[in-house]
Amino acid sequence: MIEIILVRHVKVDGPAALYGRTDIAADKNENNKLLTELSERYNSDSGALLDLIISSPLQRCRLLAEQLSKQINIPMDCIEELQEMDFGQFDGLAFDQLVDERSLNTEIEGPWSTLEGFWQAPAQATLPNAESLIEFHQRVVLSWKKLAERAIKNNQKKILVLCHGGVIRIILAEILALNWQNPTWYQALKIDYASSTKVTVSTEANNTSSYHCLVNHIGLPLITNEG
Amino acid sequence: MIEIILVRHVKVDGPAALYGRTDIAADKNENNKLLTELSERYNSDSGALLDLIISSPLQRCRLLAEQLSKQINIPMDCIEELQEMDFGQFDGLAFDQLVDERSLNTEIEGPWSTLEGFWQAPAQATLPNAESLIEFHQRVVLSWKKLAERAIKNNQKKILVLCHGGVIRIILAEILALNWQNPTWYQALKIDYASSTKVTVSTEANNTSSYHCLVNHIGLPLITNEG
Repeated sequence: MIEIILVRHVKVDGPAALYGRTDIAADKNENNKLLTELSERYNSDSGALLDLIISSPLQRCRLLAEQLSKQINIPMDCIEELQEMDFGQFDGLAFDQLVDERSLNTEIEGPWSTLEGFWQAPAQATLPNAESLIEFHQRVVLSWKKLAERAIKNNQKKILVLCHGGVIRIILAEILALNWQNPTWYQALKIDYASSTKVTVSTEANNTSSYHCLVNHIGLPLITNEG
Repeated sequence: MIEIILVRHVKVDGPAALYGRTDIAADKNENNKLLTELSERYNSDSGALLDLIISSPLQRCRLLAEQLSKQINIPMDCIEELQEMDFGQFDGLAFDQLVDERSLNTEIEGPWSTLEGFWQAPAQATLPNAESLIEFHQRVVLSWKKLAERAIKNNQKKILVLCHGGVIRIILAEILALNWQNPTWYQALKIDYASSTKVTVSTEANNTSSYHCLVNHIGLPLITNEG
């Protein structure tokens, strides 16, 4: 049995916006808290040794992964395909910089209508110059399967993956065989900053090419005491 | 905003079986641990005061709810409709008492085939004399909506609900607008004993009859240190 712990990065150091491909920094203070927590959970005295740390290449995940890798002396890998969805022209654009056409007496579709359209139908209404949800889904699912199969092949038991909210939702939808095009899946499930989502992967004793996944918990807060 | 914390009862004091309507007792030791944990989280010094404790009428939930209600001096309500699915003839029947036709050279459908059929298609293959998944879904969703609407009406802010794994899955499927007939939803998502699942319910300022729900986390272990 392999445990794969998916951890979302901490809050970012920037104004409210859609951050996907944009390589924004993580909040330093929160990042240090998460580093301390993870290093306590997974250091060599913890009885919960990791085999590998995997990270999205974006710095809000990668810098923490690199620091943790050094502190607990566990190797790390970056996987390009685990980076967040690319939101195109809207990526990294502060919401308060967008013209708010909702306050104007106009019929012209402005940025807020475009965002609203995407929010209501993310699989159909691709943002300008953005990755489509279909493309995003395809790359994340492929990457997840490779990750699980490599872990089985290499006989790994525990892997920590630093990645993004959208990436975690796609992986969950795949495991739970649910409709990843359903907008409510993105609107009504919170994958909070610095939260952990745990999946266990099991193989049959006589057939390691077939495996099944179980979701143990979703969105467990790592640096607060929420109940 | 209302927080509704759904807590599954602890492991039961009986052999492995489908426990639905059967009024089996909870494991005493685990129950005491959960009581201590909940009472620490929600006592009057905690800053996390509950308005109400709600429970399934089955003793594996109700006894804990009653004890907690007394300890932290918060009223409690039993809601009949929040009890677990009724598994009919299989309810409470120890798995190791079932004839295992899989070891016999027979074409006759035995209990394990019936269980397997239910497991693979819970919405279609109703167990003998059992509640159908459709009926179960209907009563839980109706009860959940009433619960949320009553909380809004009574201006409650924090409610703890002691209930069951199946009940929590149906509520989650309703909030996330996903296909509750999908067998993988029941197979691949673990709602562990003594775990908490948190939902927040928000109303619009000028229209309290309309509300939306957000799932904050799923399956957070309350009496272990799992990561």
